[in-house]
Amino acid sequence: MYNKEEITQWFMSLQDDICDELETADGSAKFLEDPWEREEGGGGRTRILTQGNVIEKGGVAFSAVYGKTPEKIQRALQLSPSDFYATGVSIVIHPQSPMVPIIHMNVRYFEMDNGIKWFGGGIDLTPHYINLSDAQYFHQALKEVCDRHRPEYYDRFKNWADDYFYIKHRDESRGIGGIFFDRLSPTEETSLDTIFHFVQDVGRAFAPIYTHLMQKNSNLAYGEQEKNWQLVRRGRYVEFNLVLDKGTKFGLDTQGRIESILMSLPPQANWQYNYIPPIDSPEYQTLQYLKKGINWVKA
Amino acid sequence: MYNKEEITQWFMSLQDDICDELETADGSAKFLEDPWEREEGGGGRTRILTQGNVIEKGGVAFSAVYGKTPEKIQRALQLSPSDFYATGVSIVIHPQSPMVPIIHMNVRYFEMDNGIKWFGGGIDLTPHYINLSDAQYFHQALKEVCDRHRPEYYDRFKNWADDYFYIKHRDESRGIGGIFFDRLSPTEETSLDTIFHFVQDVGRAFAPIYTHLMQKNSNLAYGEQEKNWQLVRRGRYVEFNLVLDKGTKFGLDTQGRIESILMSLPPQANWQYNYIPPIDSPEYQTLQYLKKGINWVKA
Repeated sequence: MYNKEEITQWFMSLQDDICDELETADGSAKFLEDPWEREEGGGGRTRILTQGNVIEKGGVAFSAVYGKTPEKIQRALQLSPSDFYATGVSIVIHPQSPMVPIIHMNVRYFEMDNGIKWFGGGIDLTPHYINLSDAQYFHQALKEVCDRHRPEYYDRFKNWADDYFYIKHRDESRGIGGIFFDRLSPTEETSLDTIFHFVQDVGRAFAPIYTHLMQKNSNLAYGEQEKNWQLVRRGRYVEFNLVLDKGTKFGLDTQGRIESILMSLPPQANWQYNYIPPIDSPEYQTLQYLKKGINWVKA
Repeated sequence: MYNKEEITQWFMSLQDDICDELETADGSAKFLEDPWEREEGGGGRTRILTQGNVIEKGGVAFSAVYGKTPEKIQRALQLSPSDFYATGVSIVIHPQSPMVPIIHMNVRYFEMDNGIKWFGGGIDLTPHYINLSDAQYFHQALKEVCDRHRPEYYDRFKNWADDYFYIKHRDESRGIGGIFFDRLSPTEETSLDTIFHFVQDVGRAFAPIYTHLMQKNSNLAYGEQEKNWQLVRRGRYVEFNLVLDKGTKFGLDTQGRIESILMSLPPQANWQYNYIPPIDSPEYQTLQYLKKGINWVKA
């Protein structure tokens, strides 16, 4: 059975590989590494790429932290005091062009000395303009990853993403979703190793999927209207991350490393009072697709 | 004793007066009114001014809503089910120039049919660059308002603002604070009318204070560095409002009118990874003042 050191090593190499692939696809800027340590135990290496050809601001963060389980988690999980170990890779990419989607990925592992072992993660896409063939490509790719492991995974994790990446106060989805899963622990049918193999497959799927979408869309023409809309949609991204995202909330509540937690925020976001796109405009059409329960694979 | 209709009327006239005074001081743009109704009872008139000479985006909102007390409030206040009535005026002004501060004001009244009657409110200032003489002017003006009513008000409400307008996850104040008070209800020493007179005085103080700061600072020169810093500070404003502000949180939780709740967000905000201003720069000096407990009147 894999141990936490092996899982950690694998996440570090995933961060390396993804950074390489994103740099190659971007063709211009390089990631800068910002290593950090946590007083109570562990640390991380946050990598940021800014002002690339395709990527305006992208973060690929690895961390492995450990120590006493924070009281907030103990209470949330109704646990007695214990030590924890948490490691993972988190990614958010904000592209220059409004025609290229924002993407987010996370893969994580959590264990406690009381025997709890969990994996969590997912990939979701936030296009500024929803393109049905890209949406189909994205969900099909995730479905293939899931189908290689367990037949129920795609539907289950796709619905989970629909529910999770939902901006309640706007009554709209953040984007077209993807897959999301949390607290996957060993069962009679799936060992910890089996779950880890699935998580590895999710992690490896990220770069080919996103570099394809970068290449396909980064040369599309756009003007002021599209740029403006991108900034409005980024405002919604900020609203989701600061108001609703559980990872962000947990990080802020437990006084995690603030810059690494908030690296997900866009380089720029705008709020226009009550902006409503003209009926039947491409922006309006995109809003019609920001809903739960769409079968993108067949869209 | 004033009743809720009289209090509501006064808040409406305050909104009218403040909009007039801000338009005159701006000298260019006019407020546009967006009236709205609430299905469960009441409504409001949100007024927004954009792209003025001095004001880039400013909102002056009046609302008066009533109905069954939302469950969230009942639980928070440990109350039994009852009807409520809430009315008030909220203001946030984001200026064009980084040399002019952001300002926020709120005055509000809340009552329930179980007899509870409360006033709340305050004014606080968020300069992009802290100028000690402006800070002194601002706090002195608020102190004079407070001192006309009760000797302990200024210290008490100034400390309350220090604690409230604090960005915990950044370990910095949002700005230079001001005064903040909540749940002021009648006591043996202060009748409801007495409290209302104080709240009226706070409301009337807003326009002279802010139009003075507009006039004094809006012609100061600035360049790209100052504009960039303004956008970073606006990012912090977004973080406070979406993560910490209780009014915003309450509005989002109870599905209030989203555009009126989020009118406080700036027209544009930026997030640069781990931006740290050079030592002894004006930006760095401003950060040194973003702390609780500074005696601005004597600064």
